[in-house]
Amino acid sequence: MRTRYQGIPASDGIAVAPLFILEASAPAVEERHDVSVTAEQSRLQAAIEQTKAELQTLFETAKEKMGAENAQIFTAHLQILEDPEFAGAIANTIDAQSVNAEFAVTTVANQLVAVFEQMEDEYLRQRASDIKDVSQRLLSHVQGVSRTSLAELQSPVVLAAEDLTPSDTVVLDKNLVKAFITDVGGKTSHSAIMARSLGIPAVVGLGPITHSLVSGTTVMVNGFTGEVIVDPTPDEQAEFAASIERHAAAEEQLKALVNEPSVTTDGRQVEVGGNIGSPQDLAAVLENGGEGVGLFRSEFLYMNRTAAPTEEEQFEAYRQVAAGLNGRPVVIRTLDVGGDKEIPYLDLPAERNPFLGYRAIRVCLDRTELFQTQLRAILRASHYGNIKMMFPMISNITEIRRAKQVLEEVKADLRRNAIPFDEHLEVGIMIEIPAAAVAADLLAKEVDFFSIGTNDLIQYTMACDRMNEQISHLYQPYHPAILRLVKWVIDGAHRHGKWVGMCGEMAGDLTATPILLGLGLDEFSMSAKSILKVRQAIRNLSYEQAQKLAETALAEESEEAVLALVEAWHTKQ
Amino acid sequence: MRTRYQGIPASDGIAVAPLFILEASAPAVEERHDVSVTAEQSRLQAAIEQTKAELQTLFETAKEKMGAENAQIFTAHLQILEDPEFAGAIANTIDAQSVNAEFAVTTVANQLVAVFEQMEDEYLRQRASDIKDVSQRLLSHVQGVSRTSLAELQSPVVLAAEDLTPSDTVVLDKNLVKAFITDVGGKTSHSAIMARSLGIPAVVGLGPITHSLVSGTTVMVNGFTGEVIVDPTPDEQAEFAASIERHAAAEEQLKALVNEPSVTTDGRQVEVGGNIGSPQDLAAVLENGGEGVGLFRSEFLYMNRTAAPTEEEQFEAYRQVAAGLNGRPVVIRTLDVGGDKEIPYLDLPAERNPFLGYRAIRVCLDRTELFQTQLRAILRASHYGNIKMMFPMISNITEIRRAKQVLEEVKADLRRNAIPFDEHLEVGIMIEIPAAAVAADLLAKEVDFFSIGTNDLIQYTMACDRMNEQISHLYQPYHPAILRLVKWVIDGAHRHGKWVGMCGEMAGDLTATPILLGLGLDEFSMSAKSILKVRQAIRNLSYEQAQKLAETALAEESEEAVLALVEAWHTKQ
Repeated sequence: MRTRYQGIPASDGIAVAPLFILEASAPAVEERHDVSVTAEQSRLQAAIEQTKAELQTLFETAKEKMGAENAQIFTAHLQILEDPEFAGAIANTIDAQSVNAEFAVTTVANQLVAVFEQMEDEYLRQRASDIKDVSQRLLSHVQGVSRTSLAELQSPVVLAAEDLTPSDTVVLDKNLVKAFITDVGGKTSHSAIMARSLGIPAVVGLGPITHSLVSGTTVMVNGFTGEVIVDPTPDEQAEFAASIERHAAAEEQLKALVNEPSVTTDGRQVEVGGNIGSPQDLAAVLENGGEGVGLFRSEFLYMNRTAAPTEEEQFEAYRQVAAGLNGRPVVIRTLDVGGDKEIPYLDLPAERNPFLGYRAIRVCLDRTELFQTQLRAILRASHYGNIKMMFPMISNITEIRRAKQVLEEVKADLRRNAIPFDEHLEVGIMIEIPAAAVAADLLAKEVDFFSIGTNDLIQYTMACDRMNEQISHLYQPYHPAILRLVKWVIDGAHRHGKWVGMCGEMAGDLTATPILLGLGLDEFSMSAKSILKVRQAIRNLSYEQAQKLAETALAEESEEAVLALVEAWHTKQ
Repeated sequence: MRTRYQGIPASDGIAVAPLFILEASAPAVEERHDVSVTAEQSRLQAAIEQTKAELQTLFETAKEKMGAENAQIFTAHLQILEDPEFAGAIANTIDAQSVNAEFAVTTVANQLVAVFEQMEDEYLRQRASDIKDVSQRLLSHVQGVSRTSLAELQSPVVLAAEDLTPSDTVVLDKNLVKAFITDVGGKTSHSAIMARSLGIPAVVGLGPITHSLVSGTTVMVNGFTGEVIVDPTPDEQAEFAASIERHAAAEEQLKALVNEPSVTTDGRQVEVGGNIGSPQDLAAVLENGGEGVGLFRSEFLYMNRTAAPTEEEQFEAYRQVAAGLNGRPVVIRTLDVGGDKEIPYLDLPAERNPFLGYRAIRVCLDRTELFQTQLRAILRASHYGNIKMMFPMISNITEIRRAKQVLEEVKADLRRNAIPFDEHLEVGIMIEIPAAAVAADLLAKEVDFFSIGTNDLIQYTMACDRMNEQISHLYQPYHPAILRLVKWVIDGAHRHGKWVGMCGEMAGDLTATPILLGLGLDEFSMSAKSILKVRQAIRNLSYEQAQKLAETALAEESEEAVLALVEAWHTKQ
């Protein structure tokens, strides 16, 4: 029997504990025709209602534990349940075939899963696993049985499963599940994303090993390297224990930096903050010593509802974050819908190329009422903390002026009504469209700051949909053109005395830290868990050296050459 | 009765002639159930076969008269006819309702048209008019009657119609139809595009005037201004005659430049050539004094077929163009599929954002066999003229090197087989992705020339799908960022002694001519009908003045400011 397995490292961390194998298979489903169609229909309806209630609860739990964005998955499941193609088809199957509800659920689910798994579109293919998950849940309610429950865990374990559904992940108790390992999945599969967001070490894509393992066996999981060792030898145990200690020590070192400034060895100080998607996400930023929130995505307020949020609801959310930061800054980005973020009640047109379409500020400048309400809520909240406002998807100076004009109108109205707000509220824009990057020096005159959104900027600059697997090799953060644009933006802003932040994934990537620092970036904003690592890296860097590195990188001919340069530089340090 | 109408100028030119009103309405269709379903099905099948044959003929005629791209429309019609949603639905309707074929055609057509007209997607909405057109054609075959035929025209007329279908346009005889006017349509409607490609003056979108006019009345049409005058007074006739003379004189002046160089008053000579989509398009380029072909789109060879073209077919097409140019250069762009250009047999995946997806060189570098065949055909043809090869959608240096490596392998094979080709064949790339523009100086070392594809470059730089009506105001050729990128590309190439052309629509836009010239562009390639106007503009310009204008434009803050600058400059000239 093999004892060492190599999988895909999906979430950092190391753990050793007895194995707990989660059985995924539901009881077998029989086809029965000796049924009353009416009775089966009521069993189905009852189960649907129970499932809906359960999903609603899961949504709330997930939102609290993992933030609004991660909780989206349960809204998606609710939508499937409410889709006539699904529930309607099951009811029709019962009628047409005079068959039991269990069988109808399984039949329809299998058909739909088969259809979606055949889809060429990666997004649609992923729906197959959602349909599986929600069908299993529905089936368990029809059958009146529950799956092996993770709620029964008493002592710490390493959890193993063929795959973990979102429903499994959301009920995981961090104190008991020390790590998890799965047969399938990749770095960006749902369970991997959830593991990172929960901070549980995980290794995925191990191949079909679950069936060859036995619950209770001791297992060691290394989420940094993807290594999994079953029944370790004493030597292996010792080695692992040393690893764990090293990592714990490293963690301690990081934690010691929570209240330290992000300053280089030669005195260049920058700001390292966190990105958040809802007020719930703030705690993690503060725990990890975020010096502020460099990006507060306001979309969460608009999602999972049937109408736009009121001014009061928004005000409350913004105020809560501003107050929670205790004087540290928060940059609130105004609504960025469209593209891959759909909000049904806004009734936006279907588009051939949504990423090149009607989104964010383009929508807000048309839907002035929607925009005004948000600006009013942000302005009112600005009285309670250090708020900055940021407009997304700006491509030219006219859009900035139009947005600022709406802002001035809202301000005038607040003044007339003697409603207090921060008269010195800073206004900035996202730099995520190549035209804005190339014309940054012109746009800098109109705003107080920039924040570079590298995810979109790279996508447009490379003409490469970052969600499209077939061309993922062209999504190149280290293409010399990207580095040049970043430099161009920073120089253009500094020339006019404005500061520049970055809130795309690149800002939290340690490989990029010395280059970005060397290019003169003033603020780095990232997911909470990266804050301390980036701060540590900055505190170990010399600004002068970083500037030289950046200069050399700008002259390289390709992404490969830039990466080789940075790697050699890191090794030399 | 009104006598002066203002419509949308759709195709340049002036004409006066008696009116000929094209009746669009087909005979009324009755619903009959006293039919033999079998007989109706055979009538339908016979009509479908006749319609197919007719469409095939129309396709050939259109291809010859108006080039392969314009002929595409009939392939689309053939596809509709072959689509089970259409022909199948008609057959089903006959069966299900025991109804006559005419009625079944009308029913299905009306249903489909209603569905497509409701679509949010502009592309799909446009399919409605295609369905109408093909249904009318099919119906006339079922009924065994033909529409008022334009073939019956004996003397010159101004043609009036509610709208012209592609089928109407393709049989127009330029010698008899002096102009046409329509009730509906816009600058980019199908009939407008066809009118421009045929060189027939046209005014569209006049509103419902067809019904108030009488065939035989004298009508004057000004395709430059959109003015239409019915029953003109002697004064109006004289004024119009003077206009016609002025325009004829201007045409004469232009024609006199056919063999003249494109050189500024102070001696800067550039090349002005034409874009072509098939060997048939070459004649127009030569008639208009093109100094070469700056862009030969090779897609036409791959379209309207069930398998990729053989090396021989391609060789023949490339050789024909090269030989026809008599030593003047032709830049053949290798296959640019994907995006909005679909080729079914390549079986490319459906994508969320096709413009940011798997297309052009990205496909060719994966499908090496397809690519090799094309490169072999181009190389072999290079023996028979002045051919240059160009790769589309290049975003980094690695893609250039990989493409050149495939080219070297093909060359080596040709040498081994003693097949002659131009050993000095120049190899260039399209600059249409922002990353390539920003890194142009790096890429210049790897190639012999650049051609700037402004259509895509603007689209990506502005993050704006140029086909998306809702954001069309963001497709800004004169955004300072675009001008800066063009300058960057030209400077980057010149620094390495390489030349730069432009083959996007901007190259043929007279507003842009002085700026592009001033930025140092070496070659302009455009649709044939613009060549002489651009040459004339260049011959009236001073390079020194143009350089100063370009420099000022580069410092402007917005597209509006650049356009105002250029306008003021043109007025001053």
